[in-house]
Formats: sequence, C-alpha cells, structure tokens
Amino acid sequence: MSRFSQANSVGLVTPQVYRFDQPLTLASGRDLPAYDLMVETYGELNATASNAVLICHALSGHHHAAGWHSADDAKPGWWDAYIGPGKAIDTQKFFVVALNNIGGCHGSTGPTSINPETGKIWGGDFPTLRVRDWVATQARLADRLGIAQWAAVVGGSLGGMQAMRWTLEYPDRVRHCVAVASALKLSAQNIAFNETARQAILGDPDFVAGHYAEQGRLPVKGLSVARMIGHITYLSDDGMGQKFGRELRSGSFDQGIDEPVEFQIESYLRYQGKSFSKVFDANTYILMTHALDYFDLAREYNHDPAQAFRRALCNFLVVSFTTDWRFAPARSREIVNALMRADKNVTYAEVESPYGHDAFLVGNQPRYENLFASYMQGIAV
Amino acid sequence: MSRFSQANSVGLVTPQVYRFDQPLTLASGRDLPAYDLMVETYGELNATASNAVLICHALSGHHHAAGWHSADDAKPGWWDAYIGPGKAIDTQKFFVVALNNIGGCHGSTGPTSINPETGKIWGGDFPTLRVRDWVATQARLADRLGIAQWAAVVGGSLGGMQAMRWTLEYPDRVRHCVAVASALKLSAQNIAFNETARQAILGDPDFVAGHYAEQGRLPVKGLSVARMIGHITYLSDDGMGQKFGRELRSGSFDQGIDEPVEFQIESYLRYQGKSFSKVFDANTYILMTHALDYFDLAREYNHDPAQAFRRALCNFLVVSFTTDWRFAPARSREIVNALMRADKNVTYAEVESPYGHDAFLVGNQPRYENLFASYMQGIAV
Repeated sequence: MSRFSQANSVGLVTPQVYRFDQPLTLASGRDLPAYDLMVETYGELNATASNAVLICHALSGHHHAAGWHSADDAKPGWWDAYIGPGKAIDTQKFFVVALNNIGGCHGSTGPTSINPETGKIWGGDFPTLRVRDWVATQARLADRLGIAQWAAVVGGSLGGMQAMRWTLEYPDRVRHCVAVASALKLSAQNIAFNETARQAILGDPDFVAGHYAEQGRLPVKGLSVARMIGHITYLSDDGMGQKFGRELRSGSFDQGIDEPVEFQIESYLRYQGKSFSKVFDANTYILMTHALDYFDLAREYNHDPAQAFRRALCNFLVVSFTTDWRFAPARSREIVNALMRADKNVTYAEVESPYGHDAFLVGNQPRYENLFASYMQGIAV
Repeated sequence: MSRFSQANSVGLVTPQVYRFDQPLTLASGRDLPAYDLMVETYGELNATASNAVLICHALSGHHHAAGWHSADDAKPGWWDAYIGPGKAIDTQKFFVVALNNIGGCHGSTGPTSINPETGKIWGGDFPTLRVRDWVATQARLADRLGIAQWAAVVGGSLGGMQAMRWTLEYPDRVRHCVAVASALKLSAQNIAFNETARQAILGDPDFVAGHYAEQGRLPVKGLSVARMIGHITYLSDDGMGQKFGRELRSGSFDQGIDEPVEFQIESYLRYQGKSFSKVFDANTYILMTHALDYFDLAREYNHDPAQAFRRALCNFLVVSFTTDWRFAPARSREIVNALMRADKNVTYAEVESPYGHDAFLVGNQPRYENLFASYMQGIAV
C-alpha cells in the first residue's frame, strides 16, 4: 500500500484555481483588479454546508495543507499530521478548505504574477497587504463554495491572526475559531527579527528593488539569511541543543589546523536557507512579514482586545507551546484574558513541547493532537 | 567642570601601542610573526605590582574601557560606569589594564593590519584565533608591564571566557576571576545566530572573500545585518518592548495609505547596524564570533568543567542577569556548579535587570554595582 493510500491520509489531491474578477479594495486603499486563489479541499461539503473548516496558513505556508500531489512527493502537505480521516481535523466529518493567500508565491495572485495594467511581473510593486485583506478574499471564496458559515476557522501563528480577524469582520460566519501559537500583535522583538530579515533581502544586490524576476535574477543570499533568522527563532534553544548540540559536521578541534571548524547547526541552517531561497519569493517574504508586523487586533477598538472580541459570536480554542519564545504562551494568555473579559467561551491549553514555535506544525505530539481532536470532535455540524 | 574632570572619572586617557617582536605560535598552529597591542591603563601600579586588574573585552569591545580621549568625545570608554575613582573597579586602589585583542580593529594587530610577509593588508587571510591566543598575548603584556600576578582578571561575555581561560592557563598568575554574563561554551542557538550573522557578511558582494580593504570596498550591508542580529539578541524582549513598543517613527496605520509604516525599532536597528558597519571591521567580526563558537572551557578536560577548574588557584565572582537570554543565568549556574564541584571559592549573583545580555555594560544598576564593588573591595592588594 503506498503512503498516500493509507487509511488516515487524504491521499492524492489536486489544487484548483479560483478566479475572482471583481476588484478588491485593499486595506491600503489600492484596488486589486482581479485575482486568482489556489485552493485545495479535503472531505465532502454536507448538504447544509455546515461542516466547512477553513485553514489559514502562516508566513511560508500555502494551499497544500494535506495529502500528496504525486507519488514522487518527498513530503505531504504542511499540516498533514492534523488533517485527514481520523485526524484532529477529521475529513470524514469536515469539508476542509486550504488556500494560498494573495501575495503568496504558490499559485495565488502575488508579486510573481503579471500586473494586468502593465503586462509585467508585479515584483516589488505588488500592493501592501494586511491580514484583513486575506480574510476578505477568504470570505469571497466561501461565497463561491456556497459556505455561508464556517464550522471553524483554524490557523497557527500568522494563520491564527487571520482566524481571529475573521471573528471580528464576519462574526456571523464563524462558529469556532482555533488560534494556535498566535498573538494579538507582535512584540518589538518580533518586529526587530522581521526587519532584520527584510534588510538582509533588501541589501542583496540581486533584489533590484523587488524587480529581480524581470531581470532573471534571484536574491538567494539575502533570502537565505532571512530564512536562517526565521528558522532559529522558530526553534527552541533547548530543542536546537538536543538536535544539534555542538557536534561537528567536519573539521576538528585539534590544534594545528587553521580551517574553521563547522558545527552541524551551521551546515543545517545554510542548507535550510539556501533551499528556501530557491522555492520562495523574496517579495512575498517581505509582504508577509509586514502583514505580521502591522497586525494589531485591537487597534480600531481603543486598543482594547476585549472590546474587539465583544463583536465575536463564536467559541474559541487557543493553544500555545511551552518552548515557543517567538509567540510565547504569555501572548496566548493575553488572547485568553481578552476573550474572558469579553465573556466568550474559550478553551486554552499550554502544551509542553520541545519544538518552539514550530511545534504547531510538528506531528507525534499526543497531548496537542488529543486536545485539538477533542475540540474539533465537539463541533456540531 | 568638564565631564572628564569629574571626581569619579579617570579623565583624559591616552592609549599606547606595545610592540611584540617575538613570534607567537597560535592555537591553530600558525605563527603570528610580530604584533602590536593597543593598551590603556588607569590608576597606578603599586610597588609590589600586586594591584593590577586586567579587563578583557567582548565581541565588539576594545582597549578604551574608561575615561575620555578628548573633550569632543560623545561617549566615554565602554565600561566607564564600572571603572574609575570610587567605582566598582576603583582606580584609587587598582592599576587597571585594558587592551584591544589581536584580531581586533582598534589598533592592535588584526585583519586591517599589514601582513609583513606579503606587504599587503591581512584581510581574510588573518589567522583563526581562539580565546587562549588572547590569553597568551595578555600574559606577555603582563610580563612587559612587570605584573607577575593579576589581582583580578575581569570580563563580560567573551571577556568572561578569557578570564576563565586565564585561571587554567596561568593559574598562579590570577588571584581573582570575575566572569560576568558568560558561559562555559555557547549553545547551538548561540552558534546559529553567529553563523547567520557571518552568512550576512559573506554574502555581501563587497566582502570579496575578506579582501574588501585592498579594493577600497566595505561590506556595509552585510555587517549591518550582522549587527542587527547581534543587537536584538543582546537586548531582552521586555526591555525592547519597554523602550520601543510598537511606536511608529513615521507613517500611519490609517487605512488608505500604501506606504509601509515604520516602527521605531526598525529605524533604530537600521541606524545601529549602519553606524557599526562603518567603524567595525567585518573580518574581525567573523574572527571574534568564531572564537566565541569554538570556546569550550572543558574540551581538553574530558568535557568536565570541574576537572578543568581544579587547575585554578583563584577565587571567583560569577554574575548573570535575569533577562539575558543569549548568556542566560542557567549558563552562569553551570560555571558555578563546576567551580563548587572543583572546591573553589565562588560568589554568585543573579541580578534582576531589564537589559538582557547588554546589562553587563549598562550603568545605574545599583545591585550590580554594589555587589561588583563589594567583591572588588574585598580583594587584598
């Protein structure tokens, strides 16, 4: 039996492009004349369309959340550990919708697309986006799919921010909001890391102010450093220590050798950075990190997140991970406190995990799986 | 009264170059044929030369630890808060020696110096250094100054590593070792941050494999990103939040504007990065971070730091800061535990401070000042 015909896999999946020709006025005031969304769905929409779950992706995510595109795939979708028959988001019960957000680089309209007004690649001219713009496009996608109300909107990290924004923008279209390893807004330190990553990209001469694609160039080095920064901050100090320690990949500490030794963590990070820089778009990276930085759930609500959440009509699951220092448990507790002050139903779990911020993606974590599954099982459809 | 004639300032100071013509065999096996050390001293050496204190600098430090070079200086030496008449390291009692380490870029022989064998700037060909090489040059400096034994060897961060190495290499030449915000060795995460900073420098086309100076170039962008990474990790999350929060420097969150907003933390970091990249040498940065990464106090002692410290003959003061996550209190406790297992006298303090790793440099911290001063006052000279 091949891996994608396993009982708990959604199996082979085929993404689909949805074209939206009605212009969208963005939060920035600019109009996006038309756009494509690249979408995958798993499971079956029921007759009353009451079993739909929206998956919102994080910084480097996309529409391919579960299953396999072909027998040759090295890996399944990015959240395959939690989406499938019998998994936390059970596709025997739910109709699951995952999309690549606009501004992305996996098939939806973004900086690598052609700007219809100029006939050229958007590149660095693609409009600035905010989380609410993604929510708006997701709402239109729901309309197209005949989904009046989501059983749940679910996301980790930046995806959790989209899920929370949904509850304010379309309160009557969400029954449950699941925000994993997320925050009401970034801290100065988080913004600082994002800004450093952006400076690494902007400083690469192959970035050419965002117009590298037209010139057949690629800011590999800058994006690679950006990814390295991200990668360190998504892992925990201890987790990294356990995985790599101070083991050498090559070289030796013996005296008498003037070659720099190379720690495993160094070659690992360089490899991760380089691989990423070849498959991910630098303008998308800049755009996504800016959206993260700008997000501030309570900005238009007198900076009071409880006041913001009073608009919400749904129930909430909030999850954090003990070793996540980029979106620390304290950030999730701020969400929970605001929800409680707003008299909302909220379930909160702080999960023991060695995986840092990445924990929300990592499988084989029974406590996380069980509480996630148990919450999703309790959703009436 | 001008600021440098204040009673608690060492006042105007003049650095002095010491030339060493005897070749030094480095830990790497290579010989450094000759070298200069740029040195400052404060206070007076007593008749028995029993009151000398050596200050070891950290990654971006140098010989100018206290006082002023001229009336126009914007800032005094980097540890002026702790060195001077009546200060923690009291120059009325101690003769204080501060130097720029070899490999540095502040007057001592380093990558910006001329390689006598080629007549060209060393640049990227300057030999790899380890902490013990600095200790060896510092011992020769002590010989030159007529100091058979230091009353204390003192340092923060990488400087603390030098102070600890002194106690193993020259146990009978140190009476007290003060290691502030230091560690027995770096964690994988620390190495990862250093490697990312190095990749930012190496990826800058103006780095030219370390030979930028010969070509009149300067890897400003790469070094700037490296410094930004360092800067974030030397501050605490909370401290950064208190100092900058999410305040905007320019722009507005109002809808209808497609200009990216700019947070204060962003412009601050860019400014810090850019300023640093113009005054600090990129090859030195690489060399210093490698020395940090390689340092492992117990490597030659069966990886048992207690076994290593059994060689030491001095007393120890170890200090850590609560919000320092780059050299966390847990790392200092490892030092203390090893010293106790080795039956050494050690005083340990974990100081409450909002300043992260930078705390060891920051003045106006009464608890730190008091315990530091009190320990130094107890040293017999």
